[in-house]
Amino acid sequence: MAKHPMLIPVDPLKPASSQRGLMNRWHPDIPAFCTVKPGEVFKLGCHEWTGGQIKNSDNADDVASVDLTQIHYLTGPVAVEGAEPGDALVVDLLDITYYEEMPWGYTGVFEEADGGLFATQFKSRAAKAIWDFEGRFCSSRHIPGVRFAGTTHPGIIGTAPSQELLDKWNKREQELIDQHPGASPAVALPPEPKGVYVGQDLPKEKLEKIAKEGARTIPGREHGGNCDIKNLSIGSRVYLPVYIPGANLAIGDLHFSQGDGELSFCGAIEMAGVVTMKTSLIKGGVEKLALTQPIFQPSPIDPMYAQEVVFEGIGVDIHGDGSQKSMCATTAFKQAALNTMAYLKKLGYTIEQAHLLLSAAPCQSHVGAIVDVPNACVTMSLPTQIFDRDITPNGMGPDGFEKRDYGQCAIRSDGQRGVDIFDKK
Amino acid sequence: MAKHPMLIPVDPLKPASSQRGLMNRWHPDIPAFCTVKPGEVFKLGCHEWTGGQIKNSDNADDVASVDLTQIHYLTGPVAVEGAEPGDALVVDLLDITYYEEMPWGYTGVFEEADGGLFATQFKSRAAKAIWDFEGRFCSSRHIPGVRFAGTTHPGIIGTAPSQELLDKWNKREQELIDQHPGASPAVALPPEPKGVYVGQDLPKEKLEKIAKEGARTIPGREHGGNCDIKNLSIGSRVYLPVYIPGANLAIGDLHFSQGDGELSFCGAIEMAGVVTMKTSLIKGGVEKLALTQPIFQPSPIDPMYAQEVVFEGIGVDIHGDGSQKSMCATTAFKQAALNTMAYLKKLGYTIEQAHLLLSAAPCQSHVGAIVDVPNACVTMSLPTQIFDRDITPNGMGPDGFEKRDYGQCAIRSDGQRGVDIFDKK
Amino acid sequence: MAKHPMLIPVDPLKPASSQRGLMNRWHPDIPAFCTVKPGEVFKLGCHEWTGGQIKNSDNADDVASVDLTQIHYLTGPVAVEGAEPGDALVVDLLDITYYEEMPWGYTGVFEEADGGLFATQFKSRAAKAIWDFEGRFCSSRHIPGVRFAGTTHPGIIGTAPSQELLDKWNKREQELIDQHPGASPAVALPPEPKGVYVGQDLPKEKLEKIAKEGARTIPGREHGGNCDIKNLSIGSRVYLPVYIPGANLAIGDLHFSQGDGELSFCGAIEMAGVVTMKTSLIKGGVEKLALTQPIFQPSPIDPMYAQEVVFEGIGVDIHGDGSQKSMCATTAFKQAALNTMAYLKKLGYTIEQAHLLLSAAPCQSHVGAIVDVPNACVTMSLPTQIFDRDITPNGMGPDGFEKRDYGQCAIRSDGQRGVDIFDKK
Amino acid sequence: MAKHPMLIPVDPLKPASSQRGLMNRWHPDIPAFCTVKPGEVFKLGCHEWTGGQIKNSDNADDVASVDLTQIHYLTGPVAVEGAEPGDALVVDLLDITYYEEMPWGYTGVFEEADGGLFATQFKSRAAKAIWDFEGRFCSSRHIPGVRFAGTTHPGIIGTAPSQELLDKWNKREQELIDQHPGASPAVALPPEPKGVYVGQDLPKEKLEKIAKEGARTIPGREHGGNCDIKNLSIGSRVYLPVYIPGANLAIGDLHFSQGDGELSFCGAIEMAGVVTMKTSLIKGGVEKLALTQPIFQPSPIDPMYAQEVVFEGIGVDIHGDGSQKSMCATTAFKQAALNTMAYLKKLGYTIEQAHLLLSAAPCQSHVGAIVDVPNACVTMSLPTQIFDRDITPNGMGPDGFEKRDYGQCAIRSDGQRGVDIFDKK
Repeated sequence: MAKHPMLIPVDPLKPASSQRGLMNRWHPDIPAFCTVKPGEVFKLGCHEWTGGQIKNSDNADDVASVDLTQIHYLTGPVAVEGAEPGDALVVDLLDITYYEEMPWGYTGVFEEADGGLFATQFKSRAAKAIWDFEGRFCSSRHIPGVRFAGTTHPGIIGTAPSQELLDKWNKREQELIDQHPGASPAVALPPEPKGVYVGQDLPKEKLEKIAKEGARTIPGREHGGNCDIKNLSIGSRVYLPVYIPGANLAIGDLHFSQGDGELSFCGAIEMAGVVTMKTSLIKGGVEKLALTQPIFQPSPIDPMYAQEVVFEGIGVDIHGDGSQKSMCATTAFKQAALNTMAYLKKLGYTIEQAHLLLSAAPCQSHVGAIVDVPNACVTMSLPTQIFDRDITPNGMGPDGFEKRDYGQCAIRSDGQRGVDIFDKK
Repeated sequence: MAKHPMLIPVDPLKPASSQRGLMNRWHPDIPAFCTVKPGEVFKLGCHEWTGGQIKNSDNADDVASVDLTQIHYLTGPVAVEGAEPGDALVVDLLDITYYEEMPWGYTGVFEEADGGLFATQFKSRAAKAIWDFEGRFCSSRHIPGVRFAGTTHPGIIGTAPSQELLDKWNKREQELIDQHPGASPAVALPPEPKGVYVGQDLPKEKLEKIAKEGARTIPGREHGGNCDIKNLSIGSRVYLPVYIPGANLAIGDLHFSQGDGELSFCGAIEMAGVVTMKTSLIKGGVEKLALTQPIFQPSPIDPMYAQEVVFEGIGVDIHGDGSQKSMCATTAFKQAALNTMAYLKKLGYTIEQAHLLLSAAPCQSHVGAIVDVPNACVTMSLPTQIFDRDITPNGMGPDGFEKRDYGQCAIRSDGQRGVDIFDKK
Repeated sequence: MAKHPMLIPVDPLKPASSQRGLMNRWHPDIPAFCTVKPGEVFKLGCHEWTGGQIKNSDNADDVASVDLTQIHYLTGPVAVEGAEPGDALVVDLLDITYYEEMPWGYTGVFEEADGGLFATQFKSRAAKAIWDFEGRFCSSRHIPGVRFAGTTHPGIIGTAPSQELLDKWNKREQELIDQHPGASPAVALPPEPKGVYVGQDLPKEKLEKIAKEGARTIPGREHGGNCDIKNLSIGSRVYLPVYIPGANLAIGDLHFSQGDGELSFCGAIEMAGVVTMKTSLIKGGVEKLALTQPIFQPSPIDPMYAQEVVFEGIGVDIHGDGSQKSMCATTAFKQAALNTMAYLKKLGYTIEQAHLLLSAAPCQSHVGAIVDVPNACVTMSLPTQIFDRDITPNGMGPDGFEKRDYGQCAIRSDGQRGVDIFDKK
Repeated sequence: MAKHPMLIPVDPLKPASSQRGLMNRWHPDIPAFCTVKPGEVFKLGCHEWTGGQIKNSDNADDVASVDLTQIHYLTGPVAVEGAEPGDALVVDLLDITYYEEMPWGYTGVFEEADGGLFATQFKSRAAKAIWDFEGRFCSSRHIPGVRFAGTTHPGIIGTAPSQELLDKWNKREQELIDQHPGASPAVALPPEPKGVYVGQDLPKEKLEKIAKEGARTIPGREHGGNCDIKNLSIGSRVYLPVYIPGANLAIGDLHFSQGDGELSFCGAIEMAGVVTMKTSLIKGGVEKLALTQPIFQPSPIDPMYAQEVVFEGIGVDIHGDGSQKSMCATTAFKQAALNTMAYLKKLGYTIEQAHLLLSAAPCQSHVGAIVDVPNACVTMSLPTQIFDRDITPNGMGPDGFEKRDYGQCAIRSDGQRGVDIFDKK
């Protein structure tokens, strides 16, 4: 039995912007870089999402100065023999491993203007944590006291859109942008010729068309894309709609681990690595499975962290201006997350560490209910087993939790930090 | 060792509106109906949320004509000796059992004007499913082909608000109502003297104050309340903020089972039953635990339905007007739910059955990511083990799923139904 | 919908030996006490196994003087309409609840002559722990520091043997007895007229036949019987071979909880209670399922205690005479259990408490391997979450575990105790 | 951050018998091949247990002619700085991966004289199944219809015995051999100079001492060794007693997967691969932890196959001579396993396939009870999710299971097979 072929090798220690078989926009005119047969097991190398801009260091200046027009560097497109529009492309994620020469990843908080769910509320300044990988586990010198197994997954997996679908995306997103002139952070990102990369030799006019129209890889859309679902992980089987002949699959934005919600911008543990996968086809699967968006069967090998402390959040901006929202799960999610961060601060973590930890660790966020007007209810959890002490209320002394000195994560070398909203209280 | 005392008995076969120890508004002036000591194990009877308005029948006329001013009939208040504002009230949910004489519950879709996440989109008409309880399991003649164990929980558990907190609630909710004049369904429900019930002998002026100011029990708020979190279930330990001396705990809206999100209005399996519980206190726990809202430790005995089919949803109103939302988890949740319903229709379920099933069964909904502008991503899952056939794509034949005839749930006797948005497609 | 009928009511506070519908021997001539139809949900009351000999007290004199000829008081036989030899009787265990008036159970160590895996090695003297039930959870004043949810199950469920099968049992067990003349504890128990009980009005000669031939209920056999499998619990579906028309099902020996192996004689948490169940038939199921003995599908609602400390044991009598056994899983199990008890002693538990705890708590014992001559390898585990402190090695201080004073379980009022084999070391 | 160093590289495609840093006997005089510091992450290459004797082929002649004097080729010894007798050596198993150039493993049934739990009963003839690895999953052309994730673990991990402990082993095992003169298969294996291998340059007299006294690696013993515990897997933390300075850890016999019991001789999926690990020390840990044998904390990333069909077995040789054993868990385990094999035959598998599948797949075997004289009760389970069809009784048609043609596994090229004991019935 032969080795599983590496169809697109990547060097994680060199910039992505010079490597073949990568791409950072969605467009039907990007030709397939290689072709696989259904049933064939193959490997793809994947750069980390920024293509090598972030370093294993103890300050966050690289995060502060990141060029986001380049993201995300994906691997592909990979054509699948026989795939036709209307089919379902079935992908088995068989394994994801980091590169031996790069046994680390990172989680970041980006500058306020770059975005993130709490960007404005926290007036975010760049921060980051480096995670060291030890086999299936990781820990961080920037967030002491925790260690956990990875629920490793691709943040992005998707098929190429048809021109019609692409046009629809660009139209609806532009409409949203038009509704929020001057928004900062931006509410959506239109096609952006700057930073476009396709690691193939293409005619100039084709590349220009891709640069002008190609959908940014930031949001998840009907084809999958940047869904950032932590349980779409190693061992999952995903069913993707096919829009163009060959399907033209691309994958990337590998995460060693991520919490539900990917709280901070760059909230997962970003990594470069190798994906082992296999495809098959369900002819006419879009109709048979009512496949408006991807569906998947989760993995039997996701880490099991059964004990949790769960935090409730409702659709009132309690930690902000106190305003009442109407059935807003986003607000409820934010409150649950903020309640969790406030709890982590009681243990001794800084607000930046809490923000990063909640983003990176296998925290669960469930929609409780979106039915009880006016409040949605969403929960966020901390898995207790990842900590090196008892973080349940049972672990408190008579005066509350022992507050430990956990130091600080990497921040900007000029010392600038965002706002700690809990200090006001 | 003595029996655990039943502090507030209830007759589930008689209307709630004549029984003592019940209440249907939140107000600090409702006196404690009884008092417990920390550590004492006790029982409380609970009526079903409407107080007996819904029958075990095969049409949904009772749902269509329900009086919602009466809801929810809760049991309490129960004072806890020694509880003071600023403490955390710890409640162990030790058991919840249905009444032998009422071994059934129901799930409902309410009329459009009554509300529900899909009320407008579906132009909802009343529908319901009766669930027969067989020990820890349930099934329904109205939704054949499924059977599952209950993740049984109180939809509502909460402490009494202080007058100050109550005023804050009423103010912020009224502001929201004012922003949406004439909204139907209503965006929030202000205090409503009609239908108020306190099962105690109170001075008239006190009752009038409660009627005039008492917060409706519909939404969850800082004190807990109607959170409808399926995993705040038997075996959980919940930590509630205390706002007034004695804490004045109330509980009710028991659910034999519920899916994440409680999709339809009255989406859980509503039941009457008996709760066994125990309390303790953490003095100053609000500060020690950063307790802005309840936190809980989930149960080791929640049913384990590990195999799932998971459906993705993004923040674009794909099944509606196609519009692009900005970081909207509610929209993403709706798409995930609609994708799941479309899938259930392929199996043969009607839209009403799919709606009810997804509401009632132990379906998980996770927040995937709310970071990738402009799209939030939320997932919804179907546990495969609850079905009597293989509902994974593996269970399809060459032409797709065998579409079975599952009949129909209970609908209005005049035959009126809402819109099946998938029929348009 | 009607209440589920109670077919055989039991009063747990009165001796079993005067109550109808009970029995304590297996014999085909015991007539069905009642009959059910397949699909019917029904309830059966069950006495605790000794029929009321053990009290909720703080000494173990009742255990010391127990009359074992009476055990086990089972409920039945229940005939199932249409069941014929060769069929598989399918039983759904829908619920098991304790009696409100008897919210407690017990675990016992019996006197050396009565038996138990460590009877001789420990020169056992009677000991016991009373467990208080609080809904789905239990704890014991005799074994402080632990609390857990029940994996509640019938120790015994079985169909009536045919006369042919009964004769085979009696023959093979007598042969074993004959091979070990004078063994104490006995290696097997032959039919014993003393203590026989059938709670029906039977002709004298029939009763005498039953008394003379009826198989003791101690061991599990081909028909099921006293298998004491902790995961054959509420929510399980079990498939039993049918040997006589009607199947004549009997059930009893209810356990609120038990560890794998049921370490001590009377090692589970023995309780009286009510079983809710339902039956169906697979015609010819014995052949179709190769049903030499029962098979079952375990429950989705067994408690999940995922974190464990696991202890290895091999087939050398390390804690005894040091002798080398040949592929002996029983010896390996004993070593694993003894290693676990030695560990519990480091925490402060007495040998009797450790023995009882390991018997009663949801400890897992897996067969590791029985292939590596000459040693079988078996493991035993402690679920960490049931303790009120961290019992993993991580919970140790620099000098090892803090050794707490846990008092002692109930022992004989004359103070006699067995041998603590770890004191010799 | 640097790569984790590979301390002992192995070439899995060349015979083990020429490679350095390997060993196939336990002896305190085998010098440490390398030394690690506590806390250091490092890698070790491991050959498959026979050192390369078994091929990826479709007959079992290589199994029939295997030289068992050579087994097991282990990697080590690795000394740990600071380890002293009486300490506990803590080992974190961080990862185990197969070699890219050898993405396959095998499960074997060995010839009757070589041993195995059913060797005599089945009059075993060599058989084997090749398993193809696809990332974290495997399947076999020799056993169609199943696919599962690996619970990957080292069959063997242990510290070096002291001379005193080694002498004790040799003495007690020789006594057993002496009690069974001429036994075939052998009841135990004494030191055997033939086939001894130590991949270091040693003085001749030292090598002769090792050859003469060195304990065979077949059984697990006090130091760990060949325990073949499937859940001592990637992500586990194991605590091993230290007997000599440096501890001299060795590891090998890697299993991609194994069922509880490792049913057949060579019953796991044997593989070559690379282990990533880390050590630490608990000074005086043997005393602090009562460490007579290893203990471990299992992994949060073991595959979760929650749905099962469970088979009971009791201590009567039902599928053999019908004899009654006395509290014999080994017999009970055998019956449970045989009942499972009989069930698999109903689905269409041959007896050899059933034997291999049950050995290799993540089947659970629990000790039910060893207390109910005279019968021990042990269970064996089939995880349903690993099959490509519904193997529960629910998956049967009116005439029982559809019996599929699964072909046959690899057998001897002369066509000889063992006995199918179910054909007699």
